[in-house]
Order: sequence, then C-alpha cells, then structure tokens
Amino acid sequence: MFRLGLGRQPWRFPAVQRRLYAAKRPIPKLVTTGPSTFSRYSPWSPHFAYSWKARSFLQGVTYAIGLLLATQYVDTILFSNIDKGYGTEREIRVAIEKLKLALPGEDTVSTDPEVLKSYGSSDNSYHPASPHSAVVRPSSTEDVVKIVNIAREYRVPIVVSAGATSLEGHFSGVSTGSICVDVSGMDKIIQINEADSDLVCQAGARWEDINQALKEQGIPLFFPLDPGPGATIGGMVGTGCSGTNAVRYGTAKAEWFLNLTVVLPNGEVIKTRRRSRKSAAGFDTTKLFIGAEGTLGIVTEATLRLAPLLPTKVAMAQFPSIDKAVDAVQEILNSPYGANFQCVELLDNNMMKAINTSGVIEHTYPISDTLFFKIQGSPLSIKLAAKEAQEITKKHSSSHFVFAKTDEEAADLWRNRKHALTSSIAYAGPGAKCWTTDVCVPVSRLPQLVAESKKDLEEAGISSTIVGHVGDGNFHALLLFKSDDELGKVSDAVHRIVHRAIALDGTCTGEHGVGVGKKEYLIDELGEGTVELMKTIKKAVDPQNLLNPGKLYPDGPPKKATK
Amino acid sequence: MFRLGLGRQPWRFPAVQRRLYAAKRPIPKLVTTGPSTFSRYSPWSPHFAYSWKARSFLQGVTYAIGLLLATQYVDTILFSNIDKGYGTEREIRVAIEKLKLALPGEDTVSTDPEVLKSYGSSDNSYHPASPHSAVVRPSSTEDVVKIVNIAREYRVPIVVSAGATSLEGHFSGVSTGSICVDVSGMDKIIQINEADSDLVCQAGARWEDINQALKEQGIPLFFPLDPGPGATIGGMVGTGCSGTNAVRYGTAKAEWFLNLTVVLPNGEVIKTRRRSRKSAAGFDTTKLFIGAEGTLGIVTEATLRLAPLLPTKVAMAQFPSIDKAVDAVQEILNSPYGANFQCVELLDNNMMKAINTSGVIEHTYPISDTLFFKIQGSPLSIKLAAKEAQEITKKHSSSHFVFAKTDEEAADLWRNRKHALTSSIAYAGPGAKCWTTDVCVPVSRLPQLVAESKKDLEEAGISSTIVGHVGDGNFHALLLFKSDDELGKVSDAVHRIVHRAIALDGTCTGEHGVGVGKKEYLIDELGEGTVELMKTIKKAVDPQNLLNPGKLYPDGPPKKATK
Repeated sequence: MFRLGLGRQPWRFPAVQRRLYAAKRPIPKLVTTGPSTFSRYSPWSPHFAYSWKARSFLQGVTYAIGLLLATQYVDTILFSNIDKGYGTEREIRVAIEKLKLALPGEDTVSTDPEVLKSYGSSDNSYHPASPHSAVVRPSSTEDVVKIVNIAREYRVPIVVSAGATSLEGHFSGVSTGSICVDVSGMDKIIQINEADSDLVCQAGARWEDINQALKEQGIPLFFPLDPGPGATIGGMVGTGCSGTNAVRYGTAKAEWFLNLTVVLPNGEVIKTRRRSRKSAAGFDTTKLFIGAEGTLGIVTEATLRLAPLLPTKVAMAQFPSIDKAVDAVQEILNSPYGANFQCVELLDNNMMKAINTSGVIEHTYPISDTLFFKIQGSPLSIKLAAKEAQEITKKHSSSHFVFAKTDEEAADLWRNRKHALTSSIAYAGPGAKCWTTDVCVPVSRLPQLVAESKKDLEEAGISSTIVGHVGDGNFHALLLFKSDDELGKVSDAVHRIVHRAIALDGTCTGEHGVGVGKKEYLIDELGEGTVELMKTIKKAVDPQNLLNPGKLYPDGPPKKATK
Repeated sequence: MFRLGLGRQPWRFPAVQRRLYAAKRPIPKLVTTGPSTFSRYSPWSPHFAYSWKARSFLQGVTYAIGLLLATQYVDTILFSNIDKGYGTEREIRVAIEKLKLALPGEDTVSTDPEVLKSYGSSDNSYHPASPHSAVVRPSSTEDVVKIVNIAREYRVPIVVSAGATSLEGHFSGVSTGSICVDVSGMDKIIQINEADSDLVCQAGARWEDINQALKEQGIPLFFPLDPGPGATIGGMVGTGCSGTNAVRYGTAKAEWFLNLTVVLPNGEVIKTRRRSRKSAAGFDTTKLFIGAEGTLGIVTEATLRLAPLLPTKVAMAQFPSIDKAVDAVQEILNSPYGANFQCVELLDNNMMKAINTSGVIEHTYPISDTLFFKIQGSPLSIKLAAKEAQEITKKHSSSHFVFAKTDEEAADLWRNRKHALTSSIAYAGPGAKCWTTDVCVPVSRLPQLVAESKKDLEEAGISSTIVGHVGDGNFHALLLFKSDDELGKVSDAVHRIVHRAIALDGTCTGEHGVGVGKKEYLIDELGEGTVELMKTIKKAVDPQNLLNPGKLYPDGPPKKATK
C-alpha cells in the first residue's frame, strides 16, 4: 500500500498551478531579489523560473529520490539480504574466485567435479543429494570466518563436512549451489589440561585420534563419546552423537563439551563458555549448537571434558528372546554395580550370524540374541560386577555368560560391534548395500518395538541385522538390499519403524540425527509449536538461511511466526 | 530495482493534460456517456467534473488513507506490540481484573501488599527488588496459558516463582508492574514409569517431596539433582541447578530432564521431547529452557529421568590445607572407584567451627578444612572405595578418615552441609545476615582461588564460611554482616571473588544462576558476541520482553543485532 500510495502521487499542484488551471493566468515574472531569490529554482514555488517541463522533471526526480531512499530504508529493515534468494551462478563463481584469493594454497579450494560429487553425497545414505559448487579446506577459525563472510556476501549456502560418517544426508549439497567447508584438516589438539581432565582441540579432530594421543602421552584419561569410526568432534557436536559408551557416560547432550568456539552466520566468533566444569551463567548456548547439524553456526574448536581411563573386561550372554535381554539389562543397570557397566550392547541373532560369517574373528558364536558387556573398574570390582550380571542374566533365562578369554578377543568383539555395518554388508554378499536407521523408545517398550519391526521386516522379505544400545532403548536396524526395487521396500520399512517408535512415545532418531532423512517426522514427533520454535531461532540466528539449508528443519508451508 | 522503477514513475501525464498545460485550452466538456463516464469522479482524470478545490481535496484524502494503511502495515510487521512499552497502571489494573475472572477461586489472584512484597523480594539476597502488581496461583498448564495471554494483551511482565530459594534476585518484581505466577501449587506427580526409570510431574513439585514419594511407594529410584532445600522442579530447570550430587550425576544441564512442557510467550504450549532417554531429533530445545531463568518460557511440567537408589555411607577426612584436599579429591575421582563417590564436599575451617557451635549435632568435629564423602554401591564396594579414599587422603596429608558411626550420624552430617546457610548465620550471632555467592573454576585452580579469597576476606574484616562442591571446582562463600556498612564491604568482596574466578578461566556462577546479581559479569566472562546471541534468541522468542525482564541478560546499550 505504501509504495502504491507514493506511486500514485504525481499531483501536488502548487497554488500557482492551480490558478493556472482555474484562471489561465500567465506565469508570474521572475523576482531576482528579496527572500524568494532561491525559489526560482524550486519546482514547487510559484516563482519557479523555468518551463513546466523543467518543473515536472525536477519534481519527478525529487519524488523518485525520496521514494528510492524510503524503499531502501524499509528494505534494509524488513528484508536485508533475506529475500534476494541465494546467489546466482555468476555470483557463486565470483565467490569461489574470492575464496581462492582469501585462502591461497594448493587444493585449499577445489572445484574438481569428482571432488564436489564425493563431498556432496554419501555411500551410506540414499536421500536426494546434490554436488557442491566448491570444497574449501580451512585450517583455522580465521579461515572459516573468511569463508563465512564471502558466502554471506554472495549468498551462497555453506555445508560443513569433516568425518563424513553421518547416515542421514547431513552434508549433501544444495541444488542451487553451495560451498562445502571441509574441516577435517583442522584436527589439532591445542591444549591438554590433565589436572583438570579437559582438552582443547579443533573441530576436525577424530575421537579415536584424541584417545590415541592421550594414550601415547601416558595420560590415563579418555573422551567417552564413541560414535562411528572416523567421526570428528565437529560432527559429533552437530549430530548430538552418542555411541556404545552412552549408557555409562551419557551423550553429546550431557556435559562433555565444556566450551565451543563457533563462527556465527554473521561472521562473528564466539566462545560459548569458559573452562570450568559447571556454569550457570546464562542459558546454555553450548547446547544450542549440539544437535543443530551445522545450521546455527560452524564449530571450529571445542573444550572436551575427559573421563578417567579404567581397566575393562568384555563379557557376553545369550538370551532366548530380546525381551528377556532387555529386562536383564535394566536390572543390571539399577543394581549397585550399574556404574561399572560401560557398555551394554544388544546384537540380534541375524547380526551374530553376520559376525560369524564375515566378522573379524575366527571362532564362531552361538546364533541367538546376545548382549555384549564392557565392564569397568578395579579388577576386584569388575569381578563383583560380572558376578552380579551373571546372576541377573541367569534369572532372565540366559544360557551362557562368558568373559572374553583374552584382551585380544575382547578387542575383536568390540571391533565387530563397531564395524557392524561392514560385517552386515559383507554377510549379505556381493553387490549388497545397506540402509541404516535408528530409533529410540522408553526402554520398557524396546522389546515390543524390536519384535514388531523384525516381524515386519521378515514379512517384507528384507534381510536385516539389529544392533542396539539397549540400556537406553536405542537400536539400529541395518536393512540390506541389492536392487532399486528392494531399496523402495527398505525405504517403506524405515518409515514404518519410525512411526512405530513415535507411537511408543519414542523418537525418530536416537543418535543419527535428522539431516534430510528424518525431517518429515519432526512435526509428528514434537508438534508444530516445538518445530516452529526451532525455526524461529534458526531465523533469528541465520536470517539468510545460509548454514546447511534444507536439513534438520522440516519443509512445509511457512507458519505464523512464534511471536 | 523493481521498486526503483516504480518510484521513478510518478509522471503518467495523459496526453490531454499535457495539452492542457501547453495550450491552456479550456477543460473539455463533461462526457456523460461512453467509457469515460466514471472518470468525472476521479480527481486524477482530465474529465474530473468539479473544481480544483474538490480535486485537491479528494487527492489529499486518498493519499492520506494510503499513507495510513501503509504505515499501519509496516508497523504490524516491524513493531507490533513491541515498542509500545509495558502496560500502564490502568492496563495492569484491567489485566488483574481479567485474571480474577479467568481464574476464579479464593486467593487465586492476590493483590495484598504484604503478599506482593514478600513474593517480590527474598531474605537471602540484597539486590534491588520491587513488589509485584499481583500474585497468581495457577493449578494447571491451561491456567498458565490464560495468564500468559492476558499478560501479553496488556503487556504486563511475568515473573515465575515457586520454591523461592534462589539467591540472585531471580523472582524480584518489575518496577513498572508485574504479575508473579506462583506455581508452587502445581506440585503433583502425574505419572511414575518405574520400568523406564522416569517420572512426569508438575513444575511446582519439590525434589525432596518427589524422592520422599518414591520412597513411600517402595520404588528404589530417586531424582539426583539436589539444590537447596525447598527448591522445585521448575526453578531447578530455570536456574540450571546442581548440588552435592553433581560430582557423580552431573547438573540440570546433563540429561535428567527428558521433556519439558512449556508455555511460550505467545501462549502456545509445547513439549520439547518425548519420553525416550535419548533423541537426536533436532537441536536441544529442552536445554534452551534450562538455565534461562524463566525468560524464554514458563515450564509447567517435566519428565525426569531417575537414578537407582543405592546404599550409601558417609565419611569425612581432615586436611591441613585446601590444596591438599583438592588434590586428594581429583585422585579419588579418577580412581577405579570414582563412580562410587556420590558427593565430595569441602567445608573450610570456619564452616566446621560454625557447625560445632550452631549445627544440628551434639559432638564436635576437628576445626580444619574437611572433606565429606558420600559413598554409594554394594556394601562390599563401599568398603573397597572407602579403603581407596583412605589411602589417597593419607597420601595427601590427611590426618583422619572416619566413617559416620551410625546412619543417624551420617544423616546429621549431611543435614549440616545442606543447612550451611542457617548454621553460618546462627554462628555469626543475633542480627547477622548472610550474602551467599558461588563461583566455579577449573578444578586445578580452586586452591588458588579459595586461598586468595579467604585472605582477601580476612583482610577486609569479613566473617565468612566456605562450602565447596570441590569435585567440580565450585564453591560457595557465605559472607556474614550485621550493618549496612558491612554490607557494602561484602558486596565489594563478592565482586572481587567473581573477577578472580573469571581471571582463572572460570565462571561468575557455578550453580546459583545470574538473576539480577550476576548480570554485570556476563560480557566479561563470555564476550559480547555470546551475550548478543542470547539476546537475539530472547528477542525472537519473546519479542515483547514479557518473561522475567531485567534478569539474566546484561543491561547495556543496544548493540547491532546478530545478523
């Protein structure tokens, strides 16, 4: 309305013009002295000295400038860069050239089509993916700031990648063009504070390398979050990861990240906290970035809290059914020895078959639903905890409870567990691929969920294995397929598993995150208000929607803002 | 560019008008039939049938209406209710009447001046405080929605109160008027899911009552967050509390709150999650409200994760100095028995003196820096853990390590610790008051901080006691005073303690929160960018700044938005 009003305002007849209309008097003579001298140049003055064409022209130009300033002002307030959309192909090309200037060095900025494609997609997920426009490899927080500033100037989306182990399409490219920021080269450990049990590192550091470095330096501490092999600290923050140790140590959403260095979409670098173990100074901005999948800021450094590294032993127990196994686990974890159980993993009969066939160890295990325990503590307390576990598992119909005979056997067992994906694929034979999904429910409902899902998968003719962080009610289904037809069936089965989990008061993902693959379930699981709150915050922090767009937040018609 | 084009287009002279200007021909006769009939009424038309005065008038009115609509539109988008300021006294009175209608019942809405004052201030803090305009006592989430909607309509700030145990002025009133929402009546346990180790309750439930209820029902679980006696779940979320159990179980910022029911400033009710123990579905909106001190939403219900209730024993050890005690604690916590230590509390020599004089037990303790341990586990593992602790404390120059002889003595010991505040005040004698402050630093720096602070306090002639959650580097200083002059000295000393903690890479508050008292330190501790991020989120979620304004976020000149 505002613009329309101005646009229709060509007629501000000064008195003299009105009189011209009415009485057709001649234009008055120019007065060259006195207070109205200047008014000969004013197109609104009756003393204007030039033709009506000049008058019209000057008035028009003035209105136009006024209107321009007004619209620009409104524009700045209302829209800034937001509704200009993402950069055009030409702008992206300019941005890439600017990146090359800003970050010199061979291979720092790559536009090799093979590289762009490999960074934009994953062998482990089957969601729609696009290649990136460029892959940039920063080596410091300052480099990331430069990238963010260039991307913002040219409105090019930024997708961060590091370990590239995620399963839900978190790092796929944006179809209109995107810059992939590969922070895997930012893998330095900056500071180890042994006396405080903490450590500062860059976001590209892998959790396995961190633990290895601590071991090599003889420091009896470790970082207890253990997602898939190859995962990096930055990705672990982004996904809000957990892993086999979560039953004892909690997840990334607990208190293992003391402080994060984050580059915000506006190019500003913040630290979310200082280094003390606890702080009640303000709401928890550290947690804001944990699980945000790179949509609110780019994590470049992190301060990690470490746990004491304790002696461990591995044991296993076979069960006639999953519900017996789950019952046993809850009783063990609630016993006085609960804290001695570092991991309790469920591997179903199919997974055991896969390990026997394709795993890394030579001798075979009984094929039935099996619990793997990692027990920690002093040698004596491990013994006591194992005795407790043995009694409880026996009570819940377990036929066997055996310790791994040697440390090598224990290590092999865990390697099998950590490489469940590759074992399952190898087991399914040449040409097989695997769609991995995870859901989580209140623990008492896990047996029902697993039983129904296994029955469903069998009926659909889908070959599958299951591994579960059973102490937390979280399980992964590895669904195997060899053809596009089978892929369709698998995709449908994943939907059914997710809906089943949500119906049991659970979540569409316990630890793999949302990415592209689980977006559609968020409103169903959390409600529109909660999703809208997330979007409100996303919009406030990243108004141009530059950071990892199209991930995490469900698509859908824009709803009224949460105001 | 589009708008620019329109803006420069004010001159659409129809040919006939140009000719009028040029040749001063008479206005053509009105044509009453054919396509231009209607144009006799258009003040922009050359066929306009009336005087130039009518033409000017009609054009002017049209422009005026257009401009009005345009500014209203811009206003709606840009400002809505935001910059109208808070409700006037008259509006607040109307709001209170509406509240009385919406929430009938005796005492549901109170405007008794004594009540308003007692809710608006605290005996335990000395920050500026104002009485509220009304105190409202809802009994359900729906009641809270009604309150929020009325408050929003009349732009009256809302301050939530429940246990009223906080120490930094969190629940003080707003000088221009405020509604205090007292949720302490919303104290029901809604659901106990023993098999899942979780529980759903209202925000006004006290943690002590919850644990008592579980005990009475014979359920061997408990909620391990243990802040001050009388604290409620809602306040514990708001402050991001911790307590003596934090060394074993972490704080409110860990994973004890599975799901929160929150009334947002827009009146919408959201649930942040479902009931599974883990979820990676979106960023952590639960955590957004933990530590937000009621500034982003009003928590009305919470799903709590529970821990197994284990047998415990209490022990104590005396040390010649605090640094020896801190060293011993770190070694104990990093030992294979670390997880058996549920609490490790430091009480300094002054605190021990206060307990001897004014505590709840009869026999006296040695007056030196003392560690209190609560050890949990099976009887045998408690024995093993105690043995380990005894050896370690001995190595670090402890002269004594003794178990509480009876369960009663153990309970008394802990009661003394939990009631440190009252013991300290009683010890200081009649008329004494106490300013409690807390800071937290990396554990290795705690001895330095405590030593410097104690020296400082002595030099300033301030009588004080110290209790510390020493395993986490967090301590409380209880500074005693009897006059306004002494209060001034105490206030200065608190500033110095906080600055000392921040200089040691610590925080201005480990668990008491920011409220009014610690606002001024946030920029120093976290940096402008982090504080600005908090404010950006606050503004996006609560654009009218209705929820607990003046708390948590530092005052200061408005900075550029984080865009």
